[in-house]
Amino acid sequence: MFIHNKRLQYTVRVAEPDPVLASYMLEQFGGPDGELAAAMRYFTQGLGDEDPGRKDLLLDIATEELSHLEVIGSIVAMLNKGVKARISEGAMEEAELYMSLNRGGNSHTQAILYGGGPSLTNSAGVPWTAAYIDSRGDPTCDLRSNIAAESRAKIVYERLINVTDDPGVKDALGFLMTREIAHQKSFEKALYAIEDNFPPGKLPGVERYANVYVNTSQGEGDMDGPWNSGEQWERVDDVTSELPVDGGDGLATVGLGDEDGATLAALASRTKSHAGGDPATGVELGAGPGAGKVTGADHGGAEDIDDARTMAQSLTPSR
Amino acid sequence: MFIHNKRLQYTVRVAEPDPVLASYMLEQFGGPDGELAAAMRYFTQGLGDEDPGRKDLLLDIATEELSHLEVIGSIVAMLNKGVKARISEGAMEEAELYMSLNRGGNSHTQAILYGGGPSLTNSAGVPWTAAYIDSRGDPTCDLRSNIAAESRAKIVYERLINVTDDPGVKDALGFLMTREIAHQKSFEKALYAIEDNFPPGKLPGVERYANVYVNTSQGEGDMDGPWNSGEQWERVDDVTSELPVDGGDGLATVGLGDEDGATLAALASRTKSHAGGDPATGVELGAGPGAGKVTGADHGGAEDIDDARTMAQSLTPSR
Amino acid sequence: MFIHNKRLQYTVRVAEPDPVLASYMLEQFGGPDGELAAAMRYFTQGLGDEDPGRKDLLLDIATEELSHLEVIGSIVAMLNKGVKARISEGAMEEAELYMSLNRGGNSHTQAILYGGGPSLTNSAGVPWTAAYIDSRGDPTCDLRSNIAAESRAKIVYERLINVTDDPGVKDALGFLMTREIAHQKSFEKALYAIEDNFPPGKLPGVERYANVYVNTSQGEGDMDGPWNSGEQWERVDDVTSELPVDGGDGLATVGLGDEDGATLAALASRTKSHAGGDPATGVELGAGPGAGKVTGADHGGAEDIDDARTMAQSLTPSR
Amino acid sequence: MFIHNKRLQYTVRVAEPDPVLASYMLEQFGGPDGELAAAMRYFTQGLGDEDPGRKDLLLDIATEELSHLEVIGSIVAMLNKGVKARISEGAMEEAELYMSLNRGGNSHTQAILYGGGPSLTNSAGVPWTAAYIDSRGDPTCDLRSNIAAESRAKIVYERLINVTDDPGVKDALGFLMTREIAHQKSFEKALYAIEDNFPPGKLPGVERYANVYVNTSQGEGDMDGPWNSGEQWERVDDVTSELPVDGGDGLATVGLGDEDGATLAALASRTKSHAGGDPATGVELGAGPGAGKVTGADHGGAEDIDDARTMAQSLTPSR
Amino acid sequence: MFIHNKRLQYTVRVAEPDPVLASYMLEQFGGPDGELAAAMRYFTQGLGDEDPGRKDLLLDIATEELSHLEVIGSIVAMLNKGVKARISEGAMEEAELYMSLNRGGNSHTQAILYGGGPSLTNSAGVPWTAAYIDSRGDPTCDLRSNIAAESRAKIVYERLINVTDDPGVKDALGFLMTREIAHQKSFEKALYAIEDNFPPGKLPGVERYANVYVNTSQGEGDMDGPWNSGEQWERVDDVTSELPVDGGDGLATVGLGDEDGATLAALASRTKSHAGGDPATGVELGAGPGAGKVTGADHGGAEDIDDARTMAQSLTPSR
Amino acid sequence: MFIHNKRLQYTVRVAEPDPVLASYMLEQFGGPDGELAAAMRYFTQGLGDEDPGRKDLLLDIATEELSHLEVIGSIVAMLNKGVKARISEGAMEEAELYMSLNRGGNSHTQAILYGGGPSLTNSAGVPWTAAYIDSRGDPTCDLRSNIAAESRAKIVYERLINVTDDPGVKDALGFLMTREIAHQKSFEKALYAIEDNFPPGKLPGVERYANVYVNTSQGEGDMDGPWNSGEQWERVDDVTSELPVDGGDGLATVGLGDEDGATLAALASRTKSHAGGDPATGVELGAGPGAGKVTGADHGGAEDIDDARTMAQSLTPSR
Repeated sequence: MFIHNKRLQYTVRVAEPDPVLASYMLEQFGGPDGELAAAMRYFTQGLGDEDPGRKDLLLDIATEELSHLEVIGSIVAMLNKGVKARISEGAMEEAELYMSLNRGGNSHTQAILYGGGPSLTNSAGVPWTAAYIDSRGDPTCDLRSNIAAESRAKIVYERLINVTDDPGVKDALGFLMTREIAHQKSFEKALYAIEDNFPPGKLPGVERYANVYVNTSQGEGDMDGPWNSGEQWERVDDVTSELPVDGGDGLATVGLGDEDGATLAALASRTKSHAGGDPATGVELGAGPGAGKVTGADHGGAEDIDDARTMAQSLTPSR
Repeated sequence: MFIHNKRLQYTVRVAEPDPVLASYMLEQFGGPDGELAAAMRYFTQGLGDEDPGRKDLLLDIATEELSHLEVIGSIVAMLNKGVKARISEGAMEEAELYMSLNRGGNSHTQAILYGGGPSLTNSAGVPWTAAYIDSRGDPTCDLRSNIAAESRAKIVYERLINVTDDPGVKDALGFLMTREIAHQKSFEKALYAIEDNFPPGKLPGVERYANVYVNTSQGEGDMDGPWNSGEQWERVDDVTSELPVDGGDGLATVGLGDEDGATLAALASRTKSHAGGDPATGVELGAGPGAGKVTGADHGGAEDIDDARTMAQSLTPSR
Repeated sequence: MFIHNKRLQYTVRVAEPDPVLASYMLEQFGGPDGELAAAMRYFTQGLGDEDPGRKDLLLDIATEELSHLEVIGSIVAMLNKGVKARISEGAMEEAELYMSLNRGGNSHTQAILYGGGPSLTNSAGVPWTAAYIDSRGDPTCDLRSNIAAESRAKIVYERLINVTDDPGVKDALGFLMTREIAHQKSFEKALYAIEDNFPPGKLPGVERYANVYVNTSQGEGDMDGPWNSGEQWERVDDVTSELPVDGGDGLATVGLGDEDGATLAALASRTKSHAGGDPATGVELGAGPGAGKVTGADHGGAEDIDDARTMAQSLTPSR
Repeated sequence: MFIHNKRLQYTVRVAEPDPVLASYMLEQFGGPDGELAAAMRYFTQGLGDEDPGRKDLLLDIATEELSHLEVIGSIVAMLNKGVKARISEGAMEEAELYMSLNRGGNSHTQAILYGGGPSLTNSAGVPWTAAYIDSRGDPTCDLRSNIAAESRAKIVYERLINVTDDPGVKDALGFLMTREIAHQKSFEKALYAIEDNFPPGKLPGVERYANVYVNTSQGEGDMDGPWNSGEQWERVDDVTSELPVDGGDGLATVGLGDEDGATLAALASRTKSHAGGDPATGVELGAGPGAGKVTGADHGGAEDIDDARTMAQSLTPSR
Repeated sequence: MFIHNKRLQYTVRVAEPDPVLASYMLEQFGGPDGELAAAMRYFTQGLGDEDPGRKDLLLDIATEELSHLEVIGSIVAMLNKGVKARISEGAMEEAELYMSLNRGGNSHTQAILYGGGPSLTNSAGVPWTAAYIDSRGDPTCDLRSNIAAESRAKIVYERLINVTDDPGVKDALGFLMTREIAHQKSFEKALYAIEDNFPPGKLPGVERYANVYVNTSQGEGDMDGPWNSGEQWERVDDVTSELPVDGGDGLATVGLGDEDGATLAALASRTKSHAGGDPATGVELGAGPGAGKVTGADHGGAEDIDDARTMAQSLTPSR
Repeated sequence: MFIHNKRLQYTVRVAEPDPVLASYMLEQFGGPDGELAAAMRYFTQGLGDEDPGRKDLLLDIATEELSHLEVIGSIVAMLNKGVKARISEGAMEEAELYMSLNRGGNSHTQAILYGGGPSLTNSAGVPWTAAYIDSRGDPTCDLRSNIAAESRAKIVYERLINVTDDPGVKDALGFLMTREIAHQKSFEKALYAIEDNFPPGKLPGVERYANVYVNTSQGEGDMDGPWNSGEQWERVDDVTSELPVDGGDGLATVGLGDEDGATLAALASRTKSHAGGDPATGVELGAGPGAGKVTGADHGGAEDIDDARTMAQSLTPSR
């Protein structure tokens, strides 16, 4: 069961309201790497885990992330106090209020729709979705996902620190960023406390494909690195001549019963494309008298377009 | 630039159509850990990376994942050939066709809406969303995200292998699963080829919070492990008495100018909650003559409810 | 700050695994009226509220809802224990495992993608979205939204109770359902503790439109009720002859400057529709030799279609 | 069946184009509390309702909301006339046009993607989703949801009125806002015309949990109010010592058959976490020579970060 | 299988970074008519098509669209190079960096969340969704959808060309726009190479409804055109007197068994609306002492509201 | 303004309830090609169009589609009457009700969440989204999108007709399907009533790229057709040797100022990948004692996996 203590885990001291900065901060409230995503990732994993140690860890950190959600949400609430009061009380001339909502970021939606409260959206106003949560019910996957998530959250906090000079906000963000580092370390320990954690799951790979590096992107810029070269790698450069890798015909086939086969043949026949001839088409009907419009004269790229613009602009009287 | 070769990277031999299995396979076509997600994760990273070696790696693997998208999509297309023909040609009695669409998974939507073609949805019919992509433009984060994504993809392939006994499908899935293992190895090499990859980014953490483990989930079941115990951890068990960790007052505050302050006061006064008294409410108006309905008699839990059900069922004559 | 106690608020005793029932239960875990939605609705409101009493109430209930999220999530986890073990360990013949995933609901996705862990989706597998949260930063709106949300959650629990005969699950659901009743009562009290709570906000309505009932849906079935009849209502039945209600011309107009006006005229001219004549169209090109296909003979509705089906079915040899 | 009359329900007179204001107005066109949401909420309820009076009411208001969708959409279309003409005709220098799209709100997307037509998005450009619709098929829930939705719509109109000084727009918004007030009144009447409307549905609550208030958020700031105090409430302050409320052990359990039990034991053993020791982890490999980076020196919070920034900035030559 | 060549299909030469322009360009990277949508539309169709010619065409164009995704993504990456470096290196004073992120469009999210990499979102930051893909598995539908999609993509490129004066960007956009024209022509040819392509599918329409035009929107502004007038159309102006068109009673009915019938009757009775009387409602409780607030005096629309604003503003001391 | 007449446009006579069929029908209620999508596509276009004839057409058809939404929604409501009554009244034994919800399609969510009312979701339970609407504000695009949308709607109705043998449902679906044919014809006429409708918009293409067909998908299966061969096409088969098509270097470049250049260099240096050596990685730490697990022995594909399964299954005692 969860209990709440009215003190924040970290004191929030905001120097003055700034709804644009508030809208940036939403990344860590309702964004993909934000605190709700973190809390829910670990909480869903914790509920399903069979290992008591890992379950304890996951619930500890999930709970702390909820407390961080409260800290970042409180920062947003403070940064929005001014706009919240003004839009609720209608306390400015309309034109002034319009201007004060239009300073940037996604602050206008935060004011009009959410009334200045912290909304579970990212900094663009996109509502949080559980599509961000990648819990899969296998601990060696889930811990790797958590490690990655913590590292992303750390970077986003770093970027937010880089854009504010409010010392109280900076302080609180520094605390939150540091906790992500600590959590990443914990999840790393938990991953390596599982003895045989690679590859995830139980099935081994098929040996002949496990050490092959397929050089599918070719041309100037091909590079060597430990990820494709050295003893453990068999690198394939001549990709197409080895197609398919299994020595088959490289086609997709399915066994169809007689009835399905006949039905499919009927479908194929009914929707057959007649390769010969040159059928008249809708665009030919539609290209109209100005059929030359499809292409301009051929003396470059942007120039043609500029010609068309000039022509276009002559339609507007005052220019 | 991308070029396509009509051979698949791995030959697809499906024994017979099975639209339910097809709908399961969609997890790896249009699901969160599927091949489109993989290709787009690496492709977006590759376009933005400054390091030529990593850029090459990302484009190589992105391109291979597109080829895997083609393999898994071809499996789906083959498994759906029968239903596709039948629903297009109306080649069965209606009741028979209805039954053949209703065998399970999400196969009914695949037939009615997508006509048996491979759809960019997961196995529940949820359309693919770029919210699955977690590229953040920092290589030490992005590589960790890639490592995690490959491990998740490996597990989902393993689960799919576990539910099909079609040898051709199993073979192709085994290939695809193995390539995820190989890719994870490459991304690991690339991560550790960055000299100082932890913590991600440039800002260090704040020392006093970096090694603290906060034991927020308490009670029977508290466990020790390398993630919270040992030399490198300072573990805090008495969480609330140390609140807040910064020694402040644990409140959220903001400096408001006079005008905003007065406006906020007006707002607070206008929406003040009157704590005393016991105002009549809508539910009291609505609880009506059967006010006893709010709660049953108190002799347990499910029993009350069963009583209510019995009462309810007496309304239906034929029972 | 949040703290967690390892005991659940209500003991969960599940008689035996049932992944289909688990997928139904997800409605209250990751569905629109589920516990995450409840917790986040109240939490976001609580962070932004100016009134200390209401803030306390909102945080109390938000915290309790998180505890309910834990209870319902634990029910899901228990109901899925069997499938989780089987798909992870590959512990059945493939065909058997395939069958065990295909028993209904959305249980197949829960197994393949989420590995049997509780996923933040509804019973159809749709990921939770903050679009479900309707906090608007005005307490008289937000409390009404909370009242409505609690009443929806109550009904969904009632439906879940109606479909399970597992006594432990029924008991826990009965507890959760009852708490929604209690919360609704609290929110009602809080709404009526605001002295002047209707209409929400500060601006009054425009008198001449505030008591009008517009009878826009007409014909047999028009009814009288306290919502459109009686002293306080002015009911308008002859809707179109009074159009528009403001006595204007019922058009939409805008003042355009000269330049914009000329540009708009150019646009209108360029995309003008030629009303006269009967231009040849793409579908006429495409109707082909079987132009009679557009319509069948006219002796009813379904019969035509059946004729076409018969014709169609003659394409399939074995019927 | 629906019929349309070309006159608007309310005349729209816009003084001059303003694409930023247009993007704000979208909240009530394609936003969560906008007119499409309203129309669809009532329409879906009306189709399913068993009561002829309520069905009539729901269809009346649904139809009127469609008319309001037309009014607000016409306002948006008028406010965008200028930008629509300019971007279609290419009627300005590129740099000028770029500037004219970049005045704020979400006006740039409205121009580039939607060409100035009214788009079914909210003011942040988020597409409308039926996730906003909370019809549940129970009239006492649905009417409460409608009451709440009308109150939210009223507030959003009020905020829009507060930010425009165009008298024609203000007039039309005043009409639309007032109609929400009238609709809320109708829905209230309809709710209380159901005799026994609380709690919703048929099942009573479990008596022992129906009047309990759980004080889960504790500390300074705990308040009394009619929502948690007084005769009808039993308030629990000592939350954890009463855990769980049912007197059980507060655990989650499930009865597993022998086979599932053994499989689960195998899974638990395979993924066991080794609590002892201190395994080397990936981040230890990655912390590299600059391992001091994990944390700065410990003399505060923001200061450390500023030190790192200073260090960082020395990399940029011109500063 | 896909192969990648490191050269772009078209050289990208960006004069200087411009993150606002970058955010506009995202429409064609991760927007609904962008290159990923195009590639995936054709790719999913190609995998499922039975006709070898059309399959070849679809894969050719799908592959080219992936190459265009690379071109437009490279433009975005170049336009963001400056902001990417600055936010990663913390290379400006915070206030300066804050300003440089707040220049418009959705550039702030691109910097903070995506770190300047090309994100699969549209210009408002909305993540790409496969809901944009309308492949239905019928070639005469799918080709029409492709024709429409190419025409939309052409227009969005035209709008982007209209807002940039960077000659290298203009050039590349001109190329991409032109290819959409060429693709539209190819898809038109493929549609008309199917002999009998209208109406799509196999079932004919019901003759008596196929040539009727229903004039449902009436009043001043009713127009004639080839779409509703002339020999091939039977136009119905008196819509309601012909309701329903099938000569039935225009009602919806269902045959219910005895048990369901009785249960439904019980439901209807339980939730019956009492049409008589005038029940007290929640809003009447809530309108409080200032009940006059519901409506202002009736001397117009906007004026009332302005009165309220004046009153409101008197609450703020400094005005 | 919209008015509603209580008669349906087409009488709905459903023989008996069938919630699975109801869930299929939702495709045309709340699915991507359903009636809400149709109505909203035309309505948003109509509000913005400058041409009075086209505006009239768009509003006529938009209004008719709303009437179709009512017809299909009424079908869904009738098909769900039984389940709605049963789940509301709790009128069956729990196990019976559980079974009756679990018959297939997405009927379980329709019952539990939506209470049997018609929900604005598709047949998989995915909520309707305005991402389905592709109105772009250019009539030659929008009409093409409408033509395509009508053709898709026709096919989905055809598929639904193919799966039901209820004559009343078939009749109503036949009517609805036929109206899509009629609407497609109207939109075709409207498109060709615009004189110069191809290419859409105003800018011509760049001549040298407008008639080129790029054969990017190569190998066995390359086909000729009117879409890539004949007089009007210049087909490029040797794709890579002509890269890039503009004769440039095929790279992406941007001009950076000194400061940004230096910052970018710092970033590149900080995140440089060390190509030499073979760094130890996390997976090497994690592969543990069972390092052989990464790959099985190499004697095929599926066989390895089966070996692993056998091994795995030996863990479960009873097999």
